[in-house]
Amino acid sequence: MPPKPLDYESINENVKRAQYAVRGELYLRASELQKEGKKIIFTNVGNPHALGQKPLTFPRQVVALCQAPFLLDDPNVAVLFPADAIARAKHYLSLTTGGLGAYSDSRGLPGIRKEVAEFIYRRDGYPSDPELIYLTDGASKGVMQILNTIIRGQGDGVLVPVPQYPLYSATIALLGGSLVPYFLEETANWGLDVNELRQSVTEARYKGITVRAMVIINPGNPTGQCLSEANLREVLQFCYQENLVLLGDEVYQQNIYQDERPFVSSKKVLMDMGPPISKEVQLVSFHTVSKGYWGECGQRGGYFEMTNIPPETVDEIYKVASVSLSPNVPAQIFMGLMVNPPKPGDISFDQYARESKGILDSLRRRARLMTDGFNSCRNVVCNFTEDIMHDCLCLGAMYSFPQIRLPPRAIEAAKQAGKVPDVFYCLKLLEATGISTVPGSGFGQKEGIFHLRTTILPAEEEMPAIMSSFKKFNDEFMEQYEDHRGYSRM
Amino acid sequence: MPPKPLDYESINENVKRAQYAVRGELYLRASELQKEGKKIIFTNVGNPHALGQKPLTFPRQVVALCQAPFLLDDPNVAVLFPADAIARAKHYLSLTTGGLGAYSDSRGLPGIRKEVAEFIYRRDGYPSDPELIYLTDGASKGVMQILNTIIRGQGDGVLVPVPQYPLYSATIALLGGSLVPYFLEETANWGLDVNELRQSVTEARYKGITVRAMVIINPGNPTGQCLSEANLREVLQFCYQENLVLLGDEVYQQNIYQDERPFVSSKKVLMDMGPPISKEVQLVSFHTVSKGYWGECGQRGGYFEMTNIPPETVDEIYKVASVSLSPNVPAQIFMGLMVNPPKPGDISFDQYARESKGILDSLRRRARLMTDGFNSCRNVVCNFTEDIMHDCLCLGAMYSFPQIRLPPRAIEAAKQAGKVPDVFYCLKLLEATGISTVPGSGFGQKEGIFHLRTTILPAEEEMPAIMSSFKKFNDEFMEQYEDHRGYSRM
Repeated sequence: MPPKPLDYESINENVKRAQYAVRGELYLRASELQKEGKKIIFTNVGNPHALGQKPLTFPRQVVALCQAPFLLDDPNVAVLFPADAIARAKHYLSLTTGGLGAYSDSRGLPGIRKEVAEFIYRRDGYPSDPELIYLTDGASKGVMQILNTIIRGQGDGVLVPVPQYPLYSATIALLGGSLVPYFLEETANWGLDVNELRQSVTEARYKGITVRAMVIINPGNPTGQCLSEANLREVLQFCYQENLVLLGDEVYQQNIYQDERPFVSSKKVLMDMGPPISKEVQLVSFHTVSKGYWGECGQRGGYFEMTNIPPETVDEIYKVASVSLSPNVPAQIFMGLMVNPPKPGDISFDQYARESKGILDSLRRRARLMTDGFNSCRNVVCNFTEDIMHDCLCLGAMYSFPQIRLPPRAIEAAKQAGKVPDVFYCLKLLEATGISTVPGSGFGQKEGIFHLRTTILPAEEEMPAIMSSFKKFNDEFMEQYEDHRGYSRM
Repeated sequence: MPPKPLDYESINENVKRAQYAVRGELYLRASELQKEGKKIIFTNVGNPHALGQKPLTFPRQVVALCQAPFLLDDPNVAVLFPADAIARAKHYLSLTTGGLGAYSDSRGLPGIRKEVAEFIYRRDGYPSDPELIYLTDGASKGVMQILNTIIRGQGDGVLVPVPQYPLYSATIALLGGSLVPYFLEETANWGLDVNELRQSVTEARYKGITVRAMVIINPGNPTGQCLSEANLREVLQFCYQENLVLLGDEVYQQNIYQDERPFVSSKKVLMDMGPPISKEVQLVSFHTVSKGYWGECGQRGGYFEMTNIPPETVDEIYKVASVSLSPNVPAQIFMGLMVNPPKPGDISFDQYARESKGILDSLRRRARLMTDGFNSCRNVVCNFTEDIMHDCLCLGAMYSFPQIRLPPRAIEAAKQAGKVPDVFYCLKLLEATGISTVPGSGFGQKEGIFHLRTTILPAEEEMPAIMSSFKKFNDEFMEQYEDHRGYSRM
């Protein structure tokens, strides 16, 4: 009998080609172990609430009221909800036609897109047009839609940083396009070098690929670096020269754990550069409610803003969004609340400010704990320089991405086991400690160099135990595989 | 200067090819008119809450509590919430790790997939495996994912009913596949004729297309027909012979407005048929929280169940789902509640039963009102037979799909205006009355025959005024364009 259409050998090859290590082999094995009763610490994915981070109270109050609008007519509502949450719920319901159960416009509720535009204006100092802001079910869905608009086939390439968040490699594979890697430089705090970009484009062209877009992740995932304004200007200049759309993944813009280099958006830098660049470079910027001190991953809310995209294309993007009817409406309300939180003087302001600061401060401490922990381990290196970017890997985002210097015998053992060396290491780590990480190979890394990614999200009080359990495993692993006849620590 | 990557002329052609009339020209014009202050009755999309349908109280109470879990510790919670809603919220929160703000497994929460499996077992009398049930952000997203797995390129065809819900044509175009139409027979209550299927497949093969899948929409959208068990058996037999995956779009399974032909699922009929067919035919069935008496469109919740799909493919589908991290969690809770509503004896049962029955009874009355209204209009025909399927167009789903017999002079006038004739008619209807419908051409129809689709969702008390406003417009339109020298009513 011939294979059936959904038999493995006859499905879409692009589906098979897509790889997504964040929920790949390590995650699947961790899920199995959890089913068997082992305690697993899921640090594979930036999912703060799953590791005990409490949601901010005010937005949850507002969305709960929007879900139960009949409470707004109940004389007892004030027993459980503060007046500003009640007022805000009424405000958001007034922006809908039919509440949270009605499809919104496929771009999202106009009133919320307006609040997003106002946020961008306050952040960047340049006006933003709500008609060019589309709300999405998380930032990922927006990235996928934009890449789908750009990629026409195998001959179309997208510049993606390596290491990268594998949403990009997976989506490009699914869409049948070509990933054009550019390497971030680990020894320069994962800096982005424009010469490297140039070389990547030249090599791609040599292979017959038309490079059409470039992705930056700022702050970086998994690498945590924050791009400087000067660096962003170089990138935009490069996109202008090479006729590339820039996709600015800025979902970690709230996650900055140093004061020297605050977040600057690609949009602001583009506008600062003035014409012709500010009028010519096509830019799509992405944001989310899943990260920052919100961490509302499960709600699936995000937006993208389009700059210098002609109206005909904006309409096509609208049309394709409309096939999925609308992004989920509760998460649109979360987005409204994120860009328009309680203000000083509001009843809920103090609580909101206290909760937000508490989370960010704790993330900062955890980032430091983790970096120091990794650096105290044999053959594990988590920072390279002693300048202001000392903690280069914990400047931003939610991850630590230490280099693991695997001894040749460990690499050999991995080969014997049929595993990529860092997968081998991470699986052993998982089995020994329950810590579920993602091997660096899932993000891309230079040949022969290995990493792992872990989030900095485990609860602060558990962090010392986790790091000491990591250290014990790692140091024993190194002991086991190091060549005692003279292999020395690098 | 060369075009930029997101200039219209250089974007992905498949994006341009996709058409989605439900939110197409008519909807865009209606939105414009609304902005200008005109009162618009949006009957273009099955969006019940937008037209005043109230959400069911119990599920909203449960989800509100899940959004605000801190209320569960508040001694006053019972002032606003019944005890069974509180218990149920605790139950669903216990199925999560971190509440609604945490990503779930990419297939959805295991506990809810288990509740879905139990629902399917109760409904069909055959066991269902939670591991083969994936929760999605609405049924559409599931359909898109499955089609993406099946379609490898232009040479792959999917049998789609005509008229069809344009999700299918749009998605097939986006994925670069080929739509293979099979016509439903209007004069036989939009029945599905297997000879017609055979002919469609033969014609497609002649063009070099490999037909790999077949879509049925049951109850039909836009046509409302409910497929008989005998008909479903023929379809499954046909899929077996022709080696096709069957996609069973069953999102309207609660929307049945007659008693003679209750909903029967494709899964049940497949299992009833026994081996070899029950073991061989690959089936994916779709369901949603957006339709039925729930109408929770804006929450974006759905699921699909896979039957006879090999584990390697199920894993690939899991992998691709994981790139989007997880379906939104609040809608997963809605799905749990839909498949596991309050039971007799529960505190909230009476209210739940009363609300559900109220909505369904009203939909049934509105369907009848609308059919009768259309049939009273000049050159508008909404049913063809006098047998038990008298109200053939309002047996199921949420739509009415009357045929509009346009006089030759109207067709001529449309041509002059550069419009498809039914688009011309629907635009005039919109301008005159504010009623926003979808032209039949958006769903597909036979050459020279025209329809429109309207939902049956406007509030019952507004229905007489809407139908009389429609009748006034229509009869004047016909008066204007009929040939008074002898053109006679068909």
